[in-house]
Amino acid sequence: MLSRPDVAVVGAGPVGLAIAWRCAARGLRVVVHDPAPGSGASHVAAGMLAPVAEAYFGEHELTGLLTASAARWPAFAAELTAATGVDVGYRTEGTLMVGLTADDLAEARRLWAYQQGIGLPVTPLRPSALRDREPALAPRVRGGAFAATDHQVDPRRLVPALRTAAERAGATLVPAAVRRLSDVAAGVTVVAAGCGAAALTGLPVRPVKGQVARLRAPGGGAPGFRHVIRGYADGEHVYLVPRSDGEVVVGATVEERADTDVSAGAVLRLLRAAVDLLPELAEYDLVETLAGLRPGTPDNAPILGPLPGRPGVLAATGHHRHGIVLTPVTADLIADLISTGTVDPLLAPFTPARFTPAVAAEPATSAGSGVNVGPVVPAADARSGSGTSVPEEEHTWN
Amino acid sequence: MLSRPDVAVVGAGPVGLAIAWRCAARGLRVVVHDPAPGSGASHVAAGMLAPVAEAYFGEHELTGLLTASAARWPAFAAELTAATGVDVGYRTEGTLMVGLTADDLAEARRLWAYQQGIGLPVTPLRPSALRDREPALAPRVRGGAFAATDHQVDPRRLVPALRTAAERAGATLVPAAVRRLSDVAAGVTVVAAGCGAAALTGLPVRPVKGQVARLRAPGGGAPGFRHVIRGYADGEHVYLVPRSDGEVVVGATVEERADTDVSAGAVLRLLRAAVDLLPELAEYDLVETLAGLRPGTPDNAPILGPLPGRPGVLAATGHHRHGIVLTPVTADLIADLISTGTVDPLLAPFTPARFTPAVAAEPATSAGSGVNVGPVVPAADARSGSGTSVPEEEHTWN
Repeated sequence: MLSRPDVAVVGAGPVGLAIAWRCAARGLRVVVHDPAPGSGASHVAAGMLAPVAEAYFGEHELTGLLTASAARWPAFAAELTAATGVDVGYRTEGTLMVGLTADDLAEARRLWAYQQGIGLPVTPLRPSALRDREPALAPRVRGGAFAATDHQVDPRRLVPALRTAAERAGATLVPAAVRRLSDVAAGVTVVAAGCGAAALTGLPVRPVKGQVARLRAPGGGAPGFRHVIRGYADGEHVYLVPRSDGEVVVGATVEERADTDVSAGAVLRLLRAAVDLLPELAEYDLVETLAGLRPGTPDNAPILGPLPGRPGVLAATGHHRHGIVLTPVTADLIADLISTGTVDPLLAPFTPARFTPAVAAEPATSAGSGVNVGPVVPAADARSGSGTSVPEEEHTWN
Repeated sequence: MLSRPDVAVVGAGPVGLAIAWRCAARGLRVVVHDPAPGSGASHVAAGMLAPVAEAYFGEHELTGLLTASAARWPAFAAELTAATGVDVGYRTEGTLMVGLTADDLAEARRLWAYQQGIGLPVTPLRPSALRDREPALAPRVRGGAFAATDHQVDPRRLVPALRTAAERAGATLVPAAVRRLSDVAAGVTVVAAGCGAAALTGLPVRPVKGQVARLRAPGGGAPGFRHVIRGYADGEHVYLVPRSDGEVVVGATVEERADTDVSAGAVLRLLRAAVDLLPELAEYDLVETLAGLRPGTPDNAPILGPLPGRPGVLAATGHHRHGIVLTPVTADLIADLISTGTVDPLLAPFTPARFTPAVAAEPATSAGSGVNVGPVVPAADARSGSGTSVPEEEHTWN
């Protein structure tokens, strides 16, 4: 292992690996700890980049962060492909949002009206226009809308690409679990451990189980539809994500449970809704059913920034349903914070302090109580010094 | 390998292995050829022993054979357990046949009336009696009947037990495929190759695809129901087979296809019917979905006996949906035929000659044209002779 690194990242999911990549690219010496990279929520995730379709009532600040991150995705994907040669399956056909029954459509329209009301690009479609866009939709589907800017990426391509990019930029992967943050010796420790962040930090991150089914178009061809389809079908909310290799991800349940068992009832509900919306899916192969655990938070928003009372520790967790879309902005802003010591205004609503007001209000345990900190000196600038480039005491986020 | 054996069995599914066991136990030298024992239809089969519930209009002779074989099952299972120490999951709680809707019940009642009319033990149950027997049934289930003598066994325990029994009795397993019967050197060759029999013999055996789902009761306990349940649910026919280890087999589609892909539509239909009949199954884990190929025949009955025009070759295939229940009678009667040279009257309606009348009507290609043949001399009686205990010419089934 390296001598004491500038940055230790706990968790090699997309968020952790992207942070490692961005930090390493800035010259920081980075170590990433994870016994099983990419085996968490990202292995199950569909990879929708959906700030519009995922803009819900009462989550205005989160919508802003989702939108900012989605806007970074084209360049992020291009840069990642340039760095690694890996096609991460970034696709820009956009998302169709549909309602199967009149009741489903009424529910969907309330949400679309909200999304339009806050200025998001939602285009209602006549049924004929909907079918022109996606002829495979069931004749029963009553109506829909188009979110042209809601794209997709393939998380199972993304994670290996990010790992390659991080390692090529100089980061080191340590394939072992971190049980306590005190076991990690680094200038800054970033907790990007998904649900595992709760035990490491005490932050209110809880598992939110999601079950998905993966289908495959018969005969080895591409699926018979191009858009991401998000639908309400007899009250069931389902999404269908087509990949160019023939895969279709059908998801997802949202359950307050911590197991990863696949239940017959969940698969039944997903397949029923999927086939109701797109009948040809009945003929697709069912190749995988699985469950993952999203890192949920009390306000459904991620937890990004300095951990109160824990100098030198940053959180980058709690991404819940949004880990893939939020990967670029999380990585950029956490790397900025580490290298400049400044919390970007975009991050401000999402800092851990919102869940630890008592701690945050107390006097700091070391110099300074603000979130601004002096920048971490990149290893490149510190090579003439000792192996320990940044004393922990310089990090006083609390 | 042995010098030329008395009996070569092609196919190590339950039928082939049971024939090998029975022949070896009579002192015959037996070799079984199969590159992957137990990997065919039996790996997918639910293991219902259901001569009553499977008694369909127009299949009277088949019903007789199913009934005769089911009657042999208690002793067969006991003997197998005594020989191997393996519990093959033989259970005698019986089968409930139910209808979900009024239409389903009407359809089911026509069949029950037929079954009662030919003297089979079908007992109609009042809804209250049905629920007394199986409280987990959905309140919507309109009615049912009880087939006390329709039992079950676990095919995934049965096959290893039969293999052990056959090997302990002296049979040898050769883990290689047989491409042509002429490659097999034995006194008698028994083709028990399931769907593979078509290519080896020209018999009209075709693959009939069946898809099943395997669930497991949550928490490691036994399923919340005891009987095999066979139901009509909104026109879908489904069965639910509970095992004491917590497994529930939900089956099965009947498709004129030769692939073993699992389709989303089939799993959807199976799970919907299962959950409609027994709502608690929604909470069960979905642990496996798979497809197998039953060896179907033009009249849905097996093909058992001498192959016309092919001296020394017997067929034991075409068991379609009935391979497990028919294993004991097939093994006993084929072993009898080999050792005595006499076709049991029970077998007579099922000989291959019914599909090859032109060949069967021609003069025999060697001495004799009847199905009666001289008995095979057990190896024990022939050890003083050459390694070839039975000249092929003695076998003149055609």
